Amino acid sequence: MKYGYFDDEHREYVITRPDTPLPWINYLGSDQFFGIISNTAGGYCFYQDARLRRLTRYRYNNVPMDSNGRYLYIRDANCLWNPMWKPTKAALDSYECRHGLGYTIIRAEKNGLEVTITFFIPVGTRHEVWDVCIRNHTDSPKQIRLWPFVEWCLWDAWDDMTNFQRNFSTGEVEIENQAIFHVTEYRERRNHYAYFATTFPTSGFDTNRDAFVGLHNGLHEPRVILEGGHCRNSIAHGWAPIAVHQIDIELPAKGEMSGCMLLGYAENPATNKYSETGVANKAEFRSVFARYQNSETAEQELAELKEYWAGLLSVYQVHTGEEVVDRMVNIWNQYQCMTTFNLSRSASFYESGIGRGMGYRDSNQDILGFVHLIPVRARQRILDLAATQLSDGSCFHQYQPLTKQGNADIGGGFNDDPLWLVLSTAAYIRETGDAGILTERVGFSDNPEANTTLLDHLTISLQYTLDHRGPHGLPLIGHADWNDCLNLNCFSETPGESFQLAGHIENSDVAESLMIAGLFCKACDDMQDIFNMMGQQEKAEQYRSTGEAMRGVILQHGWDGDWFLRAYDAFSHKLGSKENEEGRIFIESQGWCILGGVGLKNGYAQKALRSVKDRLATPDGIILQQPAFRRYHVHLGEISSYPPGYKENAGIFTHNNTWIQIAETLVGNG
Amino acid sequence: MKYGYFDDEHREYVITRPDTPLPWINYLGSDQFFGIISNTAGGYCFYQDARLRRLTRYRYNNVPMDSNGRYLYIRDANCLWNPMWKPTKAALDSYECRHGLGYTIIRAEKNGLEVTITFFIPVGTRHEVWDVCIRNHTDSPKQIRLWPFVEWCLWDAWDDMTNFQRNFSTGEVEIENQAIFHVTEYRERRNHYAYFATTFPTSGFDTNRDAFVGLHNGLHEPRVILEGGHCRNSIAHGWAPIAVHQIDIELPAKGEMSGCMLLGYAENPATNKYSETGVANKAEFRSVFARYQNSETAEQELAELKEYWAGLLSVYQVHTGEEVVDRMVNIWNQYQCMTTFNLSRSASFYESGIGRGMGYRDSNQDILGFVHLIPVRARQRILDLAATQLSDGSCFHQYQPLTKQGNADIGGGFNDDPLWLVLSTAAYIRETGDAGILTERVGFSDNPEANTTLLDHLTISLQYTLDHRGPHGLPLIGHADWNDCLNLNCFSETPGESFQLAGHIENSDVAESLMIAGLFCKACDDMQDIFNMMGQQEKAEQYRSTGEAMRGVILQHGWDGDWFLRAYDAFSHKLGSKENEEGRIFIESQGWCILGGVGLKNGYAQKALRSVKDRLATPDGIILQQPAFRRYHVHLGEISSYPPGYKENAGIFTHNNTWIQIAETLVGNG
Repeated sequence: MKYGYFDDEHREYVITRPDTPLPWINYLGSDQFFGIISNTAGGYCFYQDARLRRLTRYRYNNVPMDSNGRYLYIRDANCLWNPMWKPTKAALDSYECRHGLGYTIIRAEKNGLEVTITFFIPVGTRHEVWDVCIRNHTDSPKQIRLWPFVEWCLWDAWDDMTNFQRNFSTGEVEIENQAIFHVTEYRERRNHYAYFATTFPTSGFDTNRDAFVGLHNGLHEPRVILEGGHCRNSIAHGWAPIAVHQIDIELPAKGEMSGCMLLGYAENPATNKYSETGVANKAEFRSVFARYQNSETAEQELAELKEYWAGLLSVYQVHTGEEVVDRMVNIWNQYQCMTTFNLSRSASFYESGIGRGMGYRDSNQDILGFVHLIPVRARQRILDLAATQLSDGSCFHQYQPLTKQGNADIGGGFNDDPLWLVLSTAAYIRETGDAGILTERVGFSDNPEANTTLLDHLTISLQYTLDHRGPHGLPLIGHADWNDCLNLNCFSETPGESFQLAGHIENSDVAESLMIAGLFCKACDDMQDIFNMMGQQEKAEQYRSTGEAMRGVILQHGWDGDWFLRAYDAFSHKLGSKENEEGRIFIESQGWCILGGVGLKNGYAQKALRSVKDRLATPDGIILQQPAFRRYHVHLGEISSYPPGYKENAGIFTHNNTWIQIAETLVGNG
Repeated sequence: MKYGYFDDEHREYVITRPDTPLPWINYLGSDQFFGIISNTAGGYCFYQDARLRRLTRYRYNNVPMDSNGRYLYIRDANCLWNPMWKPTKAALDSYECRHGLGYTIIRAEKNGLEVTITFFIPVGTRHEVWDVCIRNHTDSPKQIRLWPFVEWCLWDAWDDMTNFQRNFSTGEVEIENQAIFHVTEYRERRNHYAYFATTFPTSGFDTNRDAFVGLHNGLHEPRVILEGGHCRNSIAHGWAPIAVHQIDIELPAKGEMSGCMLLGYAENPATNKYSETGVANKAEFRSVFARYQNSETAEQELAELKEYWAGLLSVYQVHTGEEVVDRMVNIWNQYQCMTTFNLSRSASFYESGIGRGMGYRDSNQDILGFVHLIPVRARQRILDLAATQLSDGSCFHQYQPLTKQGNADIGGGFNDDPLWLVLSTAAYIRETGDAGILTERVGFSDNPEANTTLLDHLTISLQYTLDHRGPHGLPLIGHADWNDCLNLNCFSETPGESFQLAGHIENSDVAESLMIAGLFCKACDDMQDIFNMMGQQEKAEQYRSTGEAMRGVILQHGWDGDWFLRAYDAFSHKLGSKENEEGRIFIESQGWCILGGVGLKNGYAQKALRSVKDRLATPDGIILQQPAFRRYHVHLGEISSYPPGYKENAGIFTHNNTWIQIAETLVGNG
């Protein structure tokens, strides 16, 4: 592999050169404080909410890409370099980045000086540790100067990215020995501050970006370092507050030195904000900082973090003899699921953390992946999700984690949403045996006091599909299904309008989804299991026959001869059919119909999967990911709406091809 | 002057070095298409709406500052440089930027090669011209390669700055000889495209930013140029579309060559979008491009632009014998007023062009400045503004120019707003004699069909103040007055909340403004003049006595002994008084009370102005601009809410000290 490899023993992915094709990122944090870190330490961190409590500024889509982050400048005998390569990109004698479970280690060497930095967020804390070790491999002493650097975000990341007229006037900092505090709006209406501190002795600081970097300079050429290397001890008022420490280190021949940077969040009660007039009360910071005076603290905390993850992963381990399978199942898929549970797709280098809450479908789906790791958190999430459902069974497509309220701006009408609650609940009960969850009282978003149980929610979810069927008896798609971009009822001609919200879907009773049909069958199976478990055979039988009826409809109206259709559009035209000029096979409906038990007996399931495989084996058989749909869904009925070059080879459409693999497992290699 | 000087003969400001303390910008465009350009050609352009029809991408608050824009890379015998200095910042042998009226000329020389680029938007067009002249001053021939560069904004600037998950999937371009077209969403739901074309012969192109610049490279080190200098002829699909041409030029000794770049916007009727299936109809572009095949077109258009401005400015010229006064009055103040009229503060390097409409107060105020230049446009604007007023006399604080509807998101309750309509209308009539405007039928935002005239609006505006007076008989301030940040009723403890909208101002009948009081007196004078002109002496007399009564209230409750108070806050405490520990003198109320004729007879006016001057002459007498209020208004009643260092010398507060100078003129040098 050109850029790195898996180290299964340490549960790490090792990147061996900094100039990866895109920033390769890891997620730090397990509870309340989170960070995103690339293999050159780009990224940002936040407390609880990626929009409202952003600590460090990040410029998405910047040139160069990923050009903000946690930086450490080193001057060693007039050579300026960064152990994380960026921003100077000075050539390194060696470089290695290890993305582990909740931590990232970057190690680089230049001119006989080796710097190793371990980035992590200790369990149960709200700060990020940079544990730095510097080694002199030469036979001469070295006098080096370091400048660790971060740029503050003015708390609300959205505002920070858009409202410059205001932002340039509000920044404020406070400074103490070895610590810089970001206190913008603290004296106005915030009770929280951020800090960037170091246990290394310091010889200067800067907090005004222009003073340190220079107005016309890039981060690769900070003015202070180019012009003699003396920090200006600048105090930011407005403009762009940063935090830079100046650290002088003398390393004897073969000598080494260690210390920490701490990048953290602290909150005070409104009644105890100040230590003196206008000066923030720093008690929380001091207690954190004091711990790291003990040079073993960081190491111990890293060990605790590794234990935390070892504990989580120990619940489920397989040994298949296939290295690749074991690695993904035992480590990375579970890690990914926990990350998704924690961050719910809201923050990355592309999702800016400012525009969405938690997905209803997403969050139910995530539970399938992590329920065995922390069942107690899965239980709470299931109940939270159910409480956002409306009493007719429909769902808000997203909800806000802070308020646990559905997000009306994004709306609802994604007709697969309700069914996912059945799957997550069934998975939870299978994992824990805790049938008690079914009788938990859960109201509705539009009737929070309703005297209903989780089981009532499941029943209503299925009834919602039954109540919303189209001309062929298949489930209506609503705004879209699992594939958010398959907006068959949503014709938007207005730039800027959301495709997902456009159109008069309340008047639409035509467009039907085979994916939802398959999902419904699967949900019927789950309900059957649940009622069997509860000893209610009659109810179980009822869902058995309801599912069976839907399978019959799928076989009658959803089979295209060699594979399953994807949908009927708003004109009742087939989608994902041989009849189509483009987009003939969609993976989603193959996977879900099979997961729903359709065609397992008559050979259709095998046939469908073989069709997919055959198509993929042709030269123009590519898998188009979701973005392609953004073009497709708009102009159904037009001759072409594909980007140039996509048209001829747009053979297979998929949302997520994991599911086709699961379907394959179900029917054997078709 | 360290960075430049005024060239009055050419009506230009000349900047003599590129590294100004901040980007120094000029505005291009006079009608429908606008651009912002710094002295290193940073900035962006847009058609009509700075948010919804943004052509080029701009990164506000970037590092380095102002690091996007119109770039031209030159390679001359392995030396890479930019005549606009950025982004390479290669040292220039000479540099000059001339910001003129609607155009900017940047000229630089390096190694005997001189490049002059004139940027302007020809009158009545929707494209920006870069008129480029390249001269070889050496005695040897030169073979040079040029790469003009722009990065496309994906139309909606807000979305472009925040929604990366979507944006990275939508970009599309089309390419023809010498022209690159930005057609993102053209086939979905837009009938407009942008183009970047050149009349120079081309030898290559790039449209994919990563292909040209490189993912890890800054704009100062484009990969294509560093790695041999051959464009990749890349076609962007998604990610970041750009437009770069590759131009090879052979210049004989002492030779020169000229040509244009054209950066423009074009729109097609929905029924005539395509020239062939899926390919945008380029007829509009072709007709523009054809014109520039004539090498004299650009020069002629620049001459027309200069004539256009000479015509506008010829209406009002003074010759005072004071160079500085003549320069400002005859050129720059009028230019500034027209720019403000066109762009209404919505787009700059700090106002991102995405967050606001046109101010009701601002737009009335602007009319005072430009009414003599283009009275017909002033007339239309006055009527548009009046139509957004509500029937009780209150106003939306902003309205959207495209819809001409009040912006409910920003709200109203800025109690000075209604009065400005009186001042703008009076100024218009004084300038034009067109009393007919008063009887134009204008409805209200909440009753568009009302059978009311503009004169009714003026009457209702004054009545609004009379109906909203506080305990001392002075006008209630509402959310704020001219000083948007003097939010005396708006106590916000919630981060992110707008100070201007917070608080229960409908319940507030205490906080009063002396600035509004003075403005009201001035508006009464204007009404008196209007009714006198109409021969309605009785009405005139009524406004005379109403104004006189308010003057009496001001003298009784608004005089602090040596100057005018600024306000009574929500607790009826004085603001801008000797009694205050901080903020004792505000300029706004001194200027406006005097403009309203208060204290002209009893010597208070002179005394107030002398107090301001005395205070300014003290070592701690500084003028705090608006941002200081952002801190001040929040915690009225707290001991201190000033930033450190501001507290002791916060002597004078002002919003805009032009007005104090006008007041001084009125009373003589106090």
